[in-house]
Amino acid sequence: MSTPQTNGHPKGKFTPALRLDTINGAVPNVQYAVRGELALRADKYLHKLHDHPKDHGLPFDRVVTANIGNPQQAGLDQKPITFWRQVISLLEYPDLLDKHLEVAKQIYPVDAIERAKKLHAEIGSVGAYSQSKGVVTIRRRVAKFIEERDGYPSDPEHIFLTAGASGGVASILGVALHPGDGCLIPIPQYPLYTATLAYLSATPLPYYLSEENNWSMSHDTILESVSKARQEGVPVKSLVIINPGNPTGACLDRKAMEAVIQLCYEEEILLLADEVYQANIFYPEQKPFVSFKKVLMGMPEEIAKSVELVSFHSISKGMSGECGRRGGYFECVNILPEVMDQIYKMASVSLCPPLTGQIGVDLLVSPPKPGDPSFSQWEEETQSILANLKSRSAYMSDKFNSLPGMSCVPADGAMYLMPKIEIPTKAIEEAKTRGKEPDVMYALDLLDATGICAVAGSGFGQVPGTYHIRVTALCPGVEEYCGKIETFHKEFMEKWA
Amino acid sequence: MSTPQTNGHPKGKFTPALRLDTINGAVPNVQYAVRGELALRADKYLHKLHDHPKDHGLPFDRVVTANIGNPQQAGLDQKPITFWRQVISLLEYPDLLDKHLEVAKQIYPVDAIERAKKLHAEIGSVGAYSQSKGVVTIRRRVAKFIEERDGYPSDPEHIFLTAGASGGVASILGVALHPGDGCLIPIPQYPLYTATLAYLSATPLPYYLSEENNWSMSHDTILESVSKARQEGVPVKSLVIINPGNPTGACLDRKAMEAVIQLCYEEEILLLADEVYQANIFYPEQKPFVSFKKVLMGMPEEIAKSVELVSFHSISKGMSGECGRRGGYFECVNILPEVMDQIYKMASVSLCPPLTGQIGVDLLVSPPKPGDPSFSQWEEETQSILANLKSRSAYMSDKFNSLPGMSCVPADGAMYLMPKIEIPTKAIEEAKTRGKEPDVMYALDLLDATGICAVAGSGFGQVPGTYHIRVTALCPGVEEYCGKIETFHKEFMEKWA
Repeated sequence: MSTPQTNGHPKGKFTPALRLDTINGAVPNVQYAVRGELALRADKYLHKLHDHPKDHGLPFDRVVTANIGNPQQAGLDQKPITFWRQVISLLEYPDLLDKHLEVAKQIYPVDAIERAKKLHAEIGSVGAYSQSKGVVTIRRRVAKFIEERDGYPSDPEHIFLTAGASGGVASILGVALHPGDGCLIPIPQYPLYTATLAYLSATPLPYYLSEENNWSMSHDTILESVSKARQEGVPVKSLVIINPGNPTGACLDRKAMEAVIQLCYEEEILLLADEVYQANIFYPEQKPFVSFKKVLMGMPEEIAKSVELVSFHSISKGMSGECGRRGGYFECVNILPEVMDQIYKMASVSLCPPLTGQIGVDLLVSPPKPGDPSFSQWEEETQSILANLKSRSAYMSDKFNSLPGMSCVPADGAMYLMPKIEIPTKAIEEAKTRGKEPDVMYALDLLDATGICAVAGSGFGQVPGTYHIRVTALCPGVEEYCGKIETFHKEFMEKWA
Repeated sequence: MSTPQTNGHPKGKFTPALRLDTINGAVPNVQYAVRGELALRADKYLHKLHDHPKDHGLPFDRVVTANIGNPQQAGLDQKPITFWRQVISLLEYPDLLDKHLEVAKQIYPVDAIERAKKLHAEIGSVGAYSQSKGVVTIRRRVAKFIEERDGYPSDPEHIFLTAGASGGVASILGVALHPGDGCLIPIPQYPLYTATLAYLSATPLPYYLSEENNWSMSHDTILESVSKARQEGVPVKSLVIINPGNPTGACLDRKAMEAVIQLCYEEEILLLADEVYQANIFYPEQKPFVSFKKVLMGMPEEIAKSVELVSFHSISKGMSGECGRRGGYFECVNILPEVMDQIYKMASVSLCPPLTGQIGVDLLVSPPKPGDPSFSQWEEETQSILANLKSRSAYMSDKFNSLPGMSCVPADGAMYLMPKIEIPTKAIEEAKTRGKEPDVMYALDLLDATGICAVAGSGFGQVPGTYHIRVTALCPGVEEYCGKIETFHKEFMEKWA
């Protein structure tokens, strides 16, 4: 065995193994705008405000993070759902269910204690690995939830619990897509999709949503994209649909969904339904959420039994907003058993989703029922979160539509608005000299002037020549918040008129 | 827009998009023995025992899951550390720190309440996303832990919190390795590595550990593997070392580590140090754990400032055994800033590690101190876990060495033993007719006869012609447990003599 030498490097000079030109070549191509330059600059301002609260020299006193759908973050006003936290707190310290039970009863309602006892009996310690697909009793309750939602059977063995919907999407795309395979994605889209496709060296096949037509999805546009890809020799393997839409807030109608399922049938394309905003519905009478599973099951039998569908759900959105817990699930429909085995095997390699996220899924699919001690509080909390979101969203789209050079499709649901900005030609030229997309310049200038952090439309994709920003409808003080956007926007438009 | 038709499929018959021959071609090549056929069969037995407790017809009354290092699972006797669970329980339901504080004080010790208050002030809601690298104050305390452990500076910005060490390993390999790149892995190894390499279409370059020499790692063996790979045109990018070893239990000495670092320097290879068992050390005087960071920093400056090192740690092992929480971290040393930016970007795509896992990391790196109200209980709990592990491990290796046709290197640490089985020729022939590796047959027969679930050595890799099983030293009732193995083993040896 040779002993350590200090005679210098054999090649004269050491060269690191990991360099931008030697690492996984797919990685530098990955883009993720939601947490890019803008988020970094916002972070810098946050630190400045924190370190120099009196003499920060900034034209604002706080940073408003309207860039990510993170309802429970500091500065926003969304509180966790009490029942959730009570149950999880008990499960984390099971002595509360046992030797400290009498004291615990002074704090925790009976149904939270009962629920925690039941889950504790089923799961055991939350510090143990579960099955890689997730705890079987929780998967059974997910199946029941889906059955009650849709009116069609659901098999717990076809359900995989995940670390948030992102974890599920990455797993499925990672199994489904061979390098080069095509995946249809909406434009605008949530950048998780383009990022994951880039990492997998798969080919994103954009199809545009129609802003003029309430951000709707059209069968013909998708078919056009399929034909174009096939002409170019790209195998079209899968289609992503986000419903309700992120960043658009649009809720699909059943007719459009049927047409797309028909297309998936005819073209033999896997349908990936990102349905994480299914509970964030503002006008359930006029614009209800209908799941792709339900629509598929209502189609002629040959289609209902053929089209491959994976639908994703999450505890990070809805009324729970439990992002930090990392919980979600996906359901496989019409996926070949041998392919599900591969999905299962890959889930095994990462061992299991976080137990606390799995428990979150349980609470999502089986909330307190009428008559339960916690029901009224649960109902009040969830209704108030939804009502806030709805009224802020409506206020914001009204306001944006009242501004010169700005227009905004009102949202049917989800958590975002995607106003269009008519960026003046002079501003576009200025952006070019700054080496930035015009809407990125707009978003950065907005941050510099107001502390409001909004993501440029180019991070989500948009029709070339149009410009947008995406803002969340989660911010408290919506009038002041919109007032700041209004002031900035008017000055911006005048400055570059 | 076309409307749904029921005129049959345009090609006459529907073919699913996802088939074994169309999915990501790397996925079917992934193998993960720890949760393979054996685990599935054990699951079946578990269900049978549960559903038919009286007339299950099996020759055993319980399944002993000695196949995975999952200390808190049902059937084992490792309890969670009380202080951990108290702090997390409080953070999950912060009303306990506020409006229910007086009642909470009857249950929770003062230092658990103080710690929870401090973390709550730093983190805010555990239901919010954190920074993608993890909460900055927790990363600072990780850096302090590393500094105190090693005596060298650590930069919190070079530390990434992860969802268990597995999540960290997958991230780093996913960024580092281009398809075809070579990665040196020990044989035997933890199958996470071969599984991840297969998924990335990277090339595993095995180097054998010397069972005769206490499962030691040799510089020369690694260099041989490097030379062979280079001759075959495989770019050798990285080297994985697991210390203390999984599945071997061996603890490396400083001299061997220095030699390997020297090799990484001369050959310009990234060193990946899987150090998740660093606290599971049985003989700290004779066989202490020394981190690769510490050894590297003690080398001549040119080497200390050059060799790229990523070291991994986890809350799933050690004395906490909090597997289900999914927490861990890695530290980057000498990684180029632009490469760390890429690692950060990829972490952003999956948003953030579970907050409860991050809090686990905080508790791992800053446990109660002498004088704190919880210190004595914490010390008693952790010492008893370690003492149990050590005495079981020693008992088991002694027992295995006393059996005919079985030998076992005693472990210096970690959670496993890897006894060698001299499988008789007739059994090898029988295995061939069954289409199984001989040690897989042995492990399956052991499960069928005793309910004990142990993984065959072929799942970890072994010198061709040798056979092993890996068992955990986590099982209570170690005498009965070893007695069952003894009975089975003797019968097996006689049957195939």
